[in-house]
Amino acid sequence: MDTIYAAATRKQPKSGRRRICFPMTSRAYYGRTQLLIRKLHEHPDIDLELMLGGSILLDKYSRGIAADIEAGGFTISASLFNVIEGGNHVAMAKTACLTALEFTNGIHTADPDIVVICGDRYEQLAIAMAAAYLNKTIAHIEGGDVTGSIDESVRHAITKLAHLHFVTNVDAHRRVLAMGEDPGYVFHTGSLDVEVAAGLTGPITSDTLNRYGVGDAIDLARPFVMVIQHPVTTEPDNGAHLEETLAAVLEQGIPAVWIWPNPDAGTGEMSERLRHFRERAGRHAHAMRFITDLPVADFIALLRVAACLVGNSSAGIKECSYLGTPVVDVGSRQQGRLRAHNVVQVAYDRVAIADAIRRQVTHGRYAPSDVYHRPGASDAIVGVLAGASLYTQKRFCDNAAVSVRT
Amino acid sequence: MDTIYAAATRKQPKSGRRRICFPMTSRAYYGRTQLLIRKLHEHPDIDLELMLGGSILLDKYSRGIAADIEAGGFTISASLFNVIEGGNHVAMAKTACLTALEFTNGIHTADPDIVVICGDRYEQLAIAMAAAYLNKTIAHIEGGDVTGSIDESVRHAITKLAHLHFVTNVDAHRRVLAMGEDPGYVFHTGSLDVEVAAGLTGPITSDTLNRYGVGDAIDLARPFVMVIQHPVTTEPDNGAHLEETLAAVLEQGIPAVWIWPNPDAGTGEMSERLRHFRERAGRHAHAMRFITDLPVADFIALLRVAACLVGNSSAGIKECSYLGTPVVDVGSRQQGRLRAHNVVQVAYDRVAIADAIRRQVTHGRYAPSDVYHRPGASDAIVGVLAGASLYTQKRFCDNAAVSVRT
Amino acid sequence: MDTIYAAATRKQPKSGRRRICFPMTSRAYYGRTQLLIRKLHEHPDIDLELMLGGSILLDKYSRGIAADIEAGGFTISASLFNVIEGGNHVAMAKTACLTALEFTNGIHTADPDIVVICGDRYEQLAIAMAAAYLNKTIAHIEGGDVTGSIDESVRHAITKLAHLHFVTNVDAHRRVLAMGEDPGYVFHTGSLDVEVAAGLTGPITSDTLNRYGVGDAIDLARPFVMVIQHPVTTEPDNGAHLEETLAAVLEQGIPAVWIWPNPDAGTGEMSERLRHFRERAGRHAHAMRFITDLPVADFIALLRVAACLVGNSSAGIKECSYLGTPVVDVGSRQQGRLRAHNVVQVAYDRVAIADAIRRQVTHGRYAPSDVYHRPGASDAIVGVLAGASLYTQKRFCDNAAVSVRT
Amino acid sequence: MDTIYAAATRKQPKSGRRRICFPMTSRAYYGRTQLLIRKLHEHPDIDLELMLGGSILLDKYSRGIAADIEAGGFTISASLFNVIEGGNHVAMAKTACLTALEFTNGIHTADPDIVVICGDRYEQLAIAMAAAYLNKTIAHIEGGDVTGSIDESVRHAITKLAHLHFVTNVDAHRRVLAMGEDPGYVFHTGSLDVEVAAGLTGPITSDTLNRYGVGDAIDLARPFVMVIQHPVTTEPDNGAHLEETLAAVLEQGIPAVWIWPNPDAGTGEMSERLRHFRERAGRHAHAMRFITDLPVADFIALLRVAACLVGNSSAGIKECSYLGTPVVDVGSRQQGRLRAHNVVQVAYDRVAIADAIRRQVTHGRYAPSDVYHRPGASDAIVGVLAGASLYTQKRFCDNAAVSVRT
Repeated sequence: MDTIYAAATRKQPKSGRRRICFPMTSRAYYGRTQLLIRKLHEHPDIDLELMLGGSILLDKYSRGIAADIEAGGFTISASLFNVIEGGNHVAMAKTACLTALEFTNGIHTADPDIVVICGDRYEQLAIAMAAAYLNKTIAHIEGGDVTGSIDESVRHAITKLAHLHFVTNVDAHRRVLAMGEDPGYVFHTGSLDVEVAAGLTGPITSDTLNRYGVGDAIDLARPFVMVIQHPVTTEPDNGAHLEETLAAVLEQGIPAVWIWPNPDAGTGEMSERLRHFRERAGRHAHAMRFITDLPVADFIALLRVAACLVGNSSAGIKECSYLGTPVVDVGSRQQGRLRAHNVVQVAYDRVAIADAIRRQVTHGRYAPSDVYHRPGASDAIVGVLAGASLYTQKRFCDNAAVSVRT
Repeated sequence: MDTIYAAATRKQPKSGRRRICFPMTSRAYYGRTQLLIRKLHEHPDIDLELMLGGSILLDKYSRGIAADIEAGGFTISASLFNVIEGGNHVAMAKTACLTALEFTNGIHTADPDIVVICGDRYEQLAIAMAAAYLNKTIAHIEGGDVTGSIDESVRHAITKLAHLHFVTNVDAHRRVLAMGEDPGYVFHTGSLDVEVAAGLTGPITSDTLNRYGVGDAIDLARPFVMVIQHPVTTEPDNGAHLEETLAAVLEQGIPAVWIWPNPDAGTGEMSERLRHFRERAGRHAHAMRFITDLPVADFIALLRVAACLVGNSSAGIKECSYLGTPVVDVGSRQQGRLRAHNVVQVAYDRVAIADAIRRQVTHGRYAPSDVYHRPGASDAIVGVLAGASLYTQKRFCDNAAVSVRT
Repeated sequence: MDTIYAAATRKQPKSGRRRICFPMTSRAYYGRTQLLIRKLHEHPDIDLELMLGGSILLDKYSRGIAADIEAGGFTISASLFNVIEGGNHVAMAKTACLTALEFTNGIHTADPDIVVICGDRYEQLAIAMAAAYLNKTIAHIEGGDVTGSIDESVRHAITKLAHLHFVTNVDAHRRVLAMGEDPGYVFHTGSLDVEVAAGLTGPITSDTLNRYGVGDAIDLARPFVMVIQHPVTTEPDNGAHLEETLAAVLEQGIPAVWIWPNPDAGTGEMSERLRHFRERAGRHAHAMRFITDLPVADFIALLRVAACLVGNSSAGIKECSYLGTPVVDVGSRQQGRLRAHNVVQVAYDRVAIADAIRRQVTHGRYAPSDVYHRPGASDAIVGVLAGASLYTQKRFCDNAAVSVRT
Repeated sequence: MDTIYAAATRKQPKSGRRRICFPMTSRAYYGRTQLLIRKLHEHPDIDLELMLGGSILLDKYSRGIAADIEAGGFTISASLFNVIEGGNHVAMAKTACLTALEFTNGIHTADPDIVVICGDRYEQLAIAMAAAYLNKTIAHIEGGDVTGSIDESVRHAITKLAHLHFVTNVDAHRRVLAMGEDPGYVFHTGSLDVEVAAGLTGPITSDTLNRYGVGDAIDLARPFVMVIQHPVTTEPDNGAHLEETLAAVLEQGIPAVWIWPNPDAGTGEMSERLRHFRERAGRHAHAMRFITDLPVADFIALLRVAACLVGNSSAGIKECSYLGTPVVDVGSRQQGRLRAHNVVQVAYDRVAIADAIRRQVTHGRYAPSDVYHRPGASDAIVGVLAGASLYTQKRFCDNAAVSVRT
């Protein structure tokens, strides 16, 4: 029966070069994918078109990234302002819809062979949906992981729209197959973030750090903690949760470098708590510095020397597993994700957080883990994107013998 | 560890009644869900709010449905025009995005406990996405099936955004579990379409039929075929595919009742072929009648007496399995779907289609099958919607022991 | 004081060529502006970028226009599907908003020195608004006229957003000045439509005509009338108004060429009446042909030989004034517009319309009028667009000594 | 001829009460219109529906306003988040489009007899456009003024879409008539802002003031200046222009209360300069306090005691004319507006600004002027809105004998 419909579900690459669209909607993407997009850009059989939208275009979150990208010689085929203010669920939902509406035009015009969707941000699902409706082949990087927040739903929904899958660990590989994806199109390549982190070995000086952001000067020669706590969009108490972390960090009596929260639903109340803290208590606290954005090389250099990373960033789970940085993972955002020994998980509770920070600072750095690391991740992805035969009509593969736990 | 986050993932019903939002975006929904929405509307513990959008508001596809709904005493909390003209992939993608943008406002205002997503239409995934970002609990009806077209991707992506699942057959049940859904929230209820079909036993007269649509009068006392061929959005040749069916039907020499294609990508070229046929060849052919919309009772009554249903409608797979109507299923749209003995599947080939029609007309009606039928489907769904404890934070359940076929 | 702010309100043309954006959103534009865009395209100091949106991209209204444009060697910098189905006021308003949203991206990317807005269609005001907010210099063609329908408001609102004005007659010139525009930037050039009509002197054959549209064959050797009746968006009874014209035309007993209504609010009920007529009464009536679109050369050729033009098209007022075609102008759409002797105006009343058609057919063709005609209209406009010094900050000019009639 | 079309252009009020929609999109509206909306709300023959959108819903600009409005017992029929981040021209244009798209749904659902458009903000033109396309009668408050910035174009374009006009001064009255509006529908009522200011005579304490915003405490017993400098969207140098004012204010050596700029195109660079100043120089300067929002009563109380208002707010032109507050009006934003003796206008030049502030502080308060003041402004407007016969089809009135200055 399959032969009947083959024509409808196979696409041939255009004569000459395969065109690949890469929508970038967050500063975090630029850092983690820089090896990949550089290699795609330089590949003789590939035309790479970057499309920028979402928060990557907003100064306060990513000053300089667009300029960096242009300086890199990349083709930017669209720059679309589509973040709706509010920092709440309505703004988040509408931002996703508007992003997809505008990327529809961009993708239709570019007419790519492949659209690359990266990670699990909410606007990336919207873009994946638009690309699927435009009948494009979709590649997804980092599917199959399990976490908390809306990311958990977003990631798996993207998997079910995508045709090529690049997973970062064995658990993720197993789950993507369970969900019915074609085993011939699921590739375990390891994590791009970790590959980037492994390759960035340069140091950061205090002078460099103190040119970013606002607040007190930090002396990197002395122990300090980093804090990254993003909103969890499925929870109502992001402000209160942040207060717990803030209290725990203050109690430690060591300096802190605080990376500003992502602009997702809940960010409003978190930002407000931080601003309020800065206006009132801030001047009397020990050194604290607030940074909205950091080049990835400096970010990794900080992780390499930080006494502990506190919060709910995926960098704690992934990059830090390889770097051996002690991590206190707070709350539900990374819950369920495969983790190495460097991570201690705690609830939103200032006593528990403070206690865990103390233990991790005392413990010191961990041995590197390879749970998310495979050498040559970006080369492997480029190879598939350049050479795989492409299709658009998906078909559920019954890979699994389900045995329900009841 | 689970207890820590309980607060974040459980919602309590509002004091008194549970509020349920039901977005309806296609004429087909009203027919198939009429038992369900009637029972939800009359349930003492439920406030039902219908939201209309998409093609259900456009006269040519669904004249009278909105009036019907209002006459039924239902609460319509939003009526949103958001179909973008074009009948191509761009229009389809942008329609989905605009629908989601507008339903975001509607759902945010209604603030429901549950949003009910039905089936696998492209705009329903967009609405599900918006509802998920608004942190609502999502119920999905008819997940887990396997078909062709973009519906295949849409359906499973909705599953990965939804919290309550109502499946219509054992295969679907197995797949939804394989995809990682919580077994405690997946309910095998059978098909609403089949339940409706089973309950509608009244006849249709030729007079009634000939009041709908345009074209020749049809005499229902004599054998006739029905044709329903919708666009397959992942295929480029919908117009040519329709020509094959048209030629095969014309060759039979028996009257035909033709239901107009859905307004999805590809509908433009299909409509044009049909219009061209009507203008030129039409007047010299044997009796053919074209109908854009039909009340569900009359639709089922026709299926009960048609000599054969030709095309790619899901009614051929589901309703007709129970009614025993012979079906010639053309092309890839229903490919992979669980089917009973009443269905013959053929490729887009006029000879093969004509041959299959002849065989099915000769065979005559089949014995009823229960593959999609369970008594009390709507009662079962209402019971869960009214009583299930609700949650929003999803978590992948490892139900499956994957054994990849390599 | 003026010198202080000069820097803010003057823009310098980019080195080399002036870039001009021309948004086209309706088939009518392509016909009337074809001389102008050809000359802009070929001008050594101008880069012309066409942007297509709205109904010009929808097959049924303008088959072949996009192909024509591409064949002409023009640069099309954006093609945007943004017509929302419904044919009612909501769809019209939302179409305008969506058009403006998408053209914002297009105009921002093209970064033109001038955006040319043509006429008084509702989506053109939306585009003008977007261009104004992007701080572009706006040129407006055909301001200052007085008509009925929403066009009346749209046209003057565009005037108040525009910086360069090209008017077609002395009355319009006076009004644009009264509204406070800078006299140094208002140019009386005559009508582009009339210039095009004056230059198109080729004939049309019956064979050619009968290849367009649907319905009966028309014999151009015998007298016939043309009918063009568009919706009046500010009136609720467009369907009933059309019935009056239809009845009056049928009563004449001479063949009719009917141009399908524009897709503005009200078009739904008009189309339905026409379709209903075709299905029922149509086959028994004398010859009638329905055409959705016609190349401008054939359109003008028809006007040159038609016994009478009936309806509310601006072609009756403008092109026909120069061609001498007898016109029966029905209802309020053109009310208040400067007109030559060839026009008889009547209300929506079948008796009055029928009577006026008879009188006009009996009268025969009129002597040409120059009320809308100045030789070299397109050259004059190109000259200004290429050479005028540009500004963006508008300032109301007190040209008028108001003497209110109370 | 007029009698023929009467039916099409007159609407009858619904049985009973006239429904009035009032879109509010900026904090400034709530202050200035509070008398008006209170009286509309309490009028026995009027149903008032407030619709909120734009920056009024964003916490940082208008904390508490929505709560205030709800506490006032008003009906809020829609709350729509539609501000697109970026603070540049693209974001401004797209915000306008999205606002209009969403208000289309809101206005269509509310089905009002009148939509009230206030002032000259860019999103209000978009809403007026949507209302016009929905065939609603539009009332415009504050048309006919002349200013700089994009407001100048916006204001007059709204006039050409509106049916009822409420002007605040004789110059504006003359201009609205010159633009062709019906003299019977243009009402000179004086300014609502000034009426509100005249009625708010209570004092403000230092304690109250210092609860708002951030920065140093201000002692109101000692002389201080107020600064309000908004972006001028048609100028490229808003950041540099702000630096001039900042330098001039710093040089005075007296405390300053600084109201944060509006979120229009250009606000990004202005906010950044202010934030940069606060981070670096701020702590060493004399007292300066930054406030994003202030209840109108406190705002007026400050104006009553400020030694001078510096910047480009319309409050300097209007409210301060009546209050007698000395004003230094900087740059082009209010250029051309009718002004009383209290205003000194200067260019973007720190020396000129500083000199003007010194002169104004030395001069002290001025005698009240009535150029913008008529008693009973809100009563007059309510009377017309409740009682005027309504129409939708506009028609240009030739009120003016144009004598062009050439």
